[in-house]
Amino acid sequence: MSLLAGRTNRLVGSVIDSSTSLLQKQSHDIVRFAIGSPAEEAIPTAVFDDLAPAVLTADAFDYAATEGDPWLRGALLDLLSDTPDATTGERLTVTAGGMQGLDLFGKLFIDPGDLVVVESPTYTNGSATALSYGAELLEVPTDGDGMIIDELKAAVGRASRSPKAIYVIPTFQNPSGTTMSLDRRLRLIELARSWNCMIIDDDPYAMLRFDGEEIPSIRSLADGDPLVFAVRTFSKIIAPGLRVGWVDTDPGLQQLLINAKQAMDTCTNLPNQRLVAGYLTGGFLSDHLQIQRDRYRERKIAMQQALADHFGDTASWTDPDGGFFIWVTLPGVDTQGLFATALAEGVAYIPGQAFSPGHRFTDALRLCFASTAPERIREGVARLSRAVDHG
Amino acid sequence: MSLLAGRTNRLVGSVIDSSTSLLQKQSHDIVRFAIGSPAEEAIPTAVFDDLAPAVLTADAFDYAATEGDPWLRGALLDLLSDTPDATTGERLTVTAGGMQGLDLFGKLFIDPGDLVVVESPTYTNGSATALSYGAELLEVPTDGDGMIIDELKAAVGRASRSPKAIYVIPTFQNPSGTTMSLDRRLRLIELARSWNCMIIDDDPYAMLRFDGEEIPSIRSLADGDPLVFAVRTFSKIIAPGLRVGWVDTDPGLQQLLINAKQAMDTCTNLPNQRLVAGYLTGGFLSDHLQIQRDRYRERKIAMQQALADHFGDTASWTDPDGGFFIWVTLPGVDTQGLFATALAEGVAYIPGQAFSPGHRFTDALRLCFASTAPERIREGVARLSRAVDHG
Repeated sequence: MSLLAGRTNRLVGSVIDSSTSLLQKQSHDIVRFAIGSPAEEAIPTAVFDDLAPAVLTADAFDYAATEGDPWLRGALLDLLSDTPDATTGERLTVTAGGMQGLDLFGKLFIDPGDLVVVESPTYTNGSATALSYGAELLEVPTDGDGMIIDELKAAVGRASRSPKAIYVIPTFQNPSGTTMSLDRRLRLIELARSWNCMIIDDDPYAMLRFDGEEIPSIRSLADGDPLVFAVRTFSKIIAPGLRVGWVDTDPGLQQLLINAKQAMDTCTNLPNQRLVAGYLTGGFLSDHLQIQRDRYRERKIAMQQALADHFGDTASWTDPDGGFFIWVTLPGVDTQGLFATALAEGVAYIPGQAFSPGHRFTDALRLCFASTAPERIREGVARLSRAVDHG
Repeated sequence: MSLLAGRTNRLVGSVIDSSTSLLQKQSHDIVRFAIGSPAEEAIPTAVFDDLAPAVLTADAFDYAATEGDPWLRGALLDLLSDTPDATTGERLTVTAGGMQGLDLFGKLFIDPGDLVVVESPTYTNGSATALSYGAELLEVPTDGDGMIIDELKAAVGRASRSPKAIYVIPTFQNPSGTTMSLDRRLRLIELARSWNCMIIDDDPYAMLRFDGEEIPSIRSLADGDPLVFAVRTFSKIIAPGLRVGWVDTDPGLQQLLINAKQAMDTCTNLPNQRLVAGYLTGGFLSDHLQIQRDRYRERKIAMQQALADHFGDTASWTDPDGGFFIWVTLPGVDTQGLFATALAEGVAYIPGQAFSPGHRFTDALRLCFASTAPERIREGVARLSRAVDHG
C-alpha cells in the first residue's frame, strides 16, 4: 500500500521465527533445539493450579496499574533485595515481557538514523525493535568474554559518531551462551559514559547460572547511572507465555515509561501478574531455580558430549555457564542451506545468520539445550550429524 | 535527560489516569463513575475457575504464535461468523487489547507530522498513541450522531492537506456514549477514499447494545476496503485485565503486523488467550452478553433518572443505546476544578477536558454507569449534585 511507503523496511520479520514456523508445519517427531523456551516440565503448572482460585479473583481481571500490580511490585522488590540488583519502586516498571522493555527503550530514546550498537551475533528480535524506530545497527564482534571492547571503540571510531545506545545480553548470551567478563562490563560502562550513550542491559538468564562465579550485572556495576536501562523478564525463569517482565531504570524515566506504556497496551495483563506474585510470595522460586539449574547443567553436558562424539574437531562450540544456548560453528557448512535437510532428519535449530543483521555466521547455528531431555539431546545431535554428512 | 530531547512532548500522560490515580489514594467510600471497566459482578471468574485446570496446561505458558493462538483464532472466527463482522484468518491478528491495535496502527502508518483526525471529545489514551508516533491531531466536533462530517470536510480544508488517518469510536463512543449514524458512517468512508486516508474503526462496545437498532460497523460497510483498520477487544465484553483483543485488516498487512508485534511484545500472553478461547467455545458469551446488556440498561436508566432528579434543566446529558458512558454538560461549572470537591463528597468522574487534546469541554464530565449498582448510582449522582452546589 502506498500509505506504507518507506516504513516496511523498518518492520523486519524475525528470521528466527521464519525458521521455527517452517518447523511447526512438520508433523513427525522432531528434536526441537530451535526455540528458546524453558523445559515444559519446568513450567510450574501445579503451583499455578493451586494458586489460581485464590489469586484469580474478579479484581484480577480489571485494568492493572500501568507501572505494575502493587502485589507483584512488592514481591519483586523482595526477590531482588537479596541480590546485587536490589532496587526501589521508583526504578521498577512492569512490562509485557522483556521485549516490551526493549520497545519502551525505543519509544523513549531512538530517533530515525540513530546508531545502535549490537553484539555480533545478537538476539535479532531485540535489534528488530531498534530497527522499528529507524535505528542504524552497528555489529561489534564478540568472543568468549562477550563484546570485544577494542572492536567497539574501533567500530564507533569508523562510524565517526557516538551511538545512541549499546544493546548487550551480557550473561549466557542469546545466541552464543557466552558471558561478558567483569573487566569488559566495566570498560563498557566507562565508554558509554564517555559517549553519553545508553546501555540496554538485557539480562534474562542471569538467575540460571549452573557453573562458575556470579558476575555482577551491568546495572549493579553502574550503580544507578541513568545511562543504564535494565531489561528483565520472568520468561526464562518461570514461563514465557506469561508476558511478565520489568525494567529497572533511572527514577526520572518512570513517568515517561508509564506514559509510553499506556499508549502501547494500557497495562500488563493482570491475571498473570497475580500468578507470578503468588508464586514469588509463596517462596516457590528459589527451589524452582535450583532444580532448573541442575537440569540445564545436565543437558548442556549431554549436548557437549554428543557434539564431541559426533563432530570431534570438525566443529567448535561454546561452553556456557548457564542459560539455554550453545553456539556451534561448522566450518564450511551452510547452516541455512542445511536446515531443510536437518528437518528431514528430524532435528531443528536456528541458523547462525538469523542472529546477525548483516547475515553473518553462515556456518554457525544455535542449539537450545534447555527444553530437551538428555537422551533426546543425544538423538538430536546424532541427527544433526547425519544431516551434515548428507547435506 | 538530554538524550530525551524532543521526545518527551510526544509521550503525553493520560489525563484520564491522572484523575483516577488521585482517586486511588482516597480510602473512604467513593462512588466510582470514573473508570471504564465492566461491572465486577460481570467478570466470569466462576467459569474461568472451571476452565483453568483444563486450559492452563504447561503448553499454555509457552510462547504463542504472534498472530494469536490457533484455538482462540478459530473460536473468534466462529463467534464473528454470525455477525456482519464475519472475517477470515488472514485478516485477523490477536493483540494485547484494543490499545495494542492502535499502537500497531501507529507503528505501521504514522510518521512524524502526519495529520490524524480525532473526534472531539475523543478517547485521549487512543489519540496519545498517535501522538507517540509524532502525529498532529485535528479535533472535529461531534453531536448526537457522531462526528459531524461537514465539520470534518471543513477542518481538513483549513488544514490544507489530507489526513493520514481518521480515528473514530463509532458505537457508544468513549466518552460521549453516542453512536455515529449509518449515513455518517457511509459519508466518512466516502471521504476517506477520496483522501486515500485510513479509518481507525475502534469499536469495543458494539456488542453491548441494550436499545435501538444495530448499525453495521464501519468495517462491514467498507466491505474489505484496505483503508479500514478495525480494532476490537474483549476488554469490555469479558474483562480488561486479560489484555486480549484483535485487529481486522487487509490481508496484505498481516505479515507486517506480525513483524511489528514481534518487536513489541513477541506475542499476546497465552494463558488468557486460552481462557478466552475456552470461554467462547464453551458457548458462554451469548448469555453473558444478554445479562450485561440488561444490567447496563437498568444502570443507564437509573443514572439518567438521578441526573433528572438532581440537575433538572441545569445540566444536559447524552442518551446512549449501549456501552458504558454518559456525557454530562454542566454549563458554567469547571469540572476539573470541581473534581477535588466531588471526591471529598465521595464521588469520582473524569473531567471533560481529559477527553480533548486541546483541553476543550471544561464544563463537561464522563460518568461510567456500567460498574455501579443502581442504588449506588443514585447516591453517587446525589453526591455530584452536592459537590456542584458546594463547589
